Amino acid sequence: VAEFSENELLRRVRDASRDLTVRWPQRIALGPGDDMAAIHMPPRADHSLLLTAIDQVIVGRHVSRDTPWRLVGRKAVARNISDIAAMAARPLVCVASVAMPRGTETARALELFDGLRSMAEAYGCPLVGGDTGSHAGVDDPLVVSVAVIADTPPGRGPIRRAGARVGDGLFVTGELGGSWRPDGGGRHLSFKPRLSEATELVERLGVDLHAMIDLSDGLGRDAARLAEASGVRARIDASSLPCAEGCDWRRAVGDGEDYELLFAAPEGRVPQRLGDTPVTRIGSVIVASAPGEAPLAEIVVDGVAHDIGAFGWEHGGGRES
Amino acid sequence: VAEFSENELLRRVRDASRDLTVRWPQRIALGPGDDMAAIHMPPRADHSLLLTAIDQVIVGRHVSRDTPWRLVGRKAVARNISDIAAMAARPLVCVASVAMPRGTETARALELFDGLRSMAEAYGCPLVGGDTGSHAGVDDPLVVSVAVIADTPPGRGPIRRAGARVGDGLFVTGELGGSWRPDGGGRHLSFKPRLSEATELVERLGVDLHAMIDLSDGLGRDAARLAEASGVRARIDASSLPCAEGCDWRRAVGDGEDYELLFAAPEGRVPQRLGDTPVTRIGSVIVASAPGEAPLAEIVVDGVAHDIGAFGWEHGGGRES
Repeated sequence: VAEFSENELLRRVRDASRDLTVRWPQRIALGPGDDMAAIHMPPRADHSLLLTAIDQVIVGRHVSRDTPWRLVGRKAVARNISDIAAMAARPLVCVASVAMPRGTETARALELFDGLRSMAEAYGCPLVGGDTGSHAGVDDPLVVSVAVIADTPPGRGPIRRAGARVGDGLFVTGELGGSWRPDGGGRHLSFKPRLSEATELVERLGVDLHAMIDLSDGLGRDAARLAEASGVRARIDASSLPCAEGCDWRRAVGDGEDYELLFAAPEGRVPQRLGDTPVTRIGSVIVASAPGEAPLAEIVVDGVAHDIGAFGWEHGGGRES
Repeated sequence: VAEFSENELLRRVRDASRDLTVRWPQRIALGPGDDMAAIHMPPRADHSLLLTAIDQVIVGRHVSRDTPWRLVGRKAVARNISDIAAMAARPLVCVASVAMPRGTETARALELFDGLRSMAEAYGCPLVGGDTGSHAGVDDPLVVSVAVIADTPPGRGPIRRAGARVGDGLFVTGELGGSWRPDGGGRHLSFKPRLSEATELVERLGVDLHAMIDLSDGLGRDAARLAEASGVRARIDASSLPCAEGCDWRRAVGDGEDYELLFAAPEGRVPQRLGDTPVTRIGSVIVASAPGEAPLAEIVVDGVAHDIGAFGWEHGGGRES
């Protein structure tokens, strides 16, 4: 059993990445192995934007110590693809940094790399560079950060959290709740970021897709974020929630890690499915709120409204991009 | 003393970032506060490239547990700016992810943010987004990852590690060795990335700037990387090294964390200074090597050649972008 060797790992990563410029010739000019990776500038349309975000997975917080490293890598990429979906943007490339416990075996590091690489390529967002390092301690937790670059379709700006209007319906893709299982498994390790759904949605609705966010910290907290950015209040009807099996409304609102899309749009134009993924109307944008006014998000259960803006799950951290 | 509060921290970060689109109107379309940040696509020239890299600072490896967090943030950005300099590219924006020990005080988190933000802006690379999270344990080490986006001046590709030619001189900026001090301080916490020097160099030399790398892991290892990428051998003359005070050639070659530039170019055209920074010729590109052939980098001391390709400092990790 060989300890993580820098040179061995870098050689394996470089070998696995050697054909990136062949497989993505229009995208990638320079893959791993230099001080930076290079991509060809996407064709510019007026007002076209480049988007970027970074998101991490911390062992002990976002995954357990028992989670196979391939799935840790998968999740680190998937969280970022979910951010791209939330803006209805198009992935270009990603980079990853990895802080491993001292003494990590090379085979394990390669599993992680494989999880990162295969997930990134599956969503059209090839991994073009990275940084690997090890902690001082053998028990220090693995931390994997992935940063993504994306762009927006020509002539169509990114879909923001701001923009929801009074009278809009509120909709979610898929099912909510129960993404974490007590045994450490669950959907949070296997979810499919709603990238194609977001693309279909923006193509069908155009400017009627008013606002969108992906649900990472729970419907309660994330609906409040969308509402705050839009200067409105979100009212959710508990009986309409697409609860995952075994989950009541509380879990659907508070469990978090769903990585579904929440969006605001006029009711009439929203399809019931995007691809194979069901879309459910869960509530309405009901009234403009004053800045800082509570509740930003409320749920109506048996005729009584409850504030759910602080209801969601806190990873012990926040996401700011 | 308040423990790190997600919402408090996000509010402070957002307040401090609110005017980013005002201060950088041509660059930034959307700052922190949404699922992704957005920048205006740079004007496209033929063959213009976008560059990206990610680099992390792990407490206990790249800095000590006593290092003030403002300096940890500074270093995390500075390492990435040094990568941009190594490609003779131009910074656009950066994003940062931070994994903090459980129980971190908000004031300390804000110091870190301030170190990231002020260094990023000082080098024209504003911090537009991020992700903050906390570890499960109070003693788990801080990890800060920064990812950067850059572009290349119109009509001028990035300067790669590959491209050094037999007969080129090898040059370094500044002084080498002693960047780490036993008391935990030192130049590795205060170095100025050689961004303006790289820009001046590529403007003066044009296509005669054949290859470049920044010295993070020590001259020995990094010269070997440049040589390997170029398919040549680097020969360094010990007596010509610009050793920092108190350092002999061994430390100049092996200490690492210099963040100076090493480049290959025909001797006659290289200036003795770039701005106020001295440039020293330290050796030559002497012979094309077969792939994998050792030594890739050697140093001549009193007429005897020594292999220095594995001589440099290993952080317990490797850099691959």
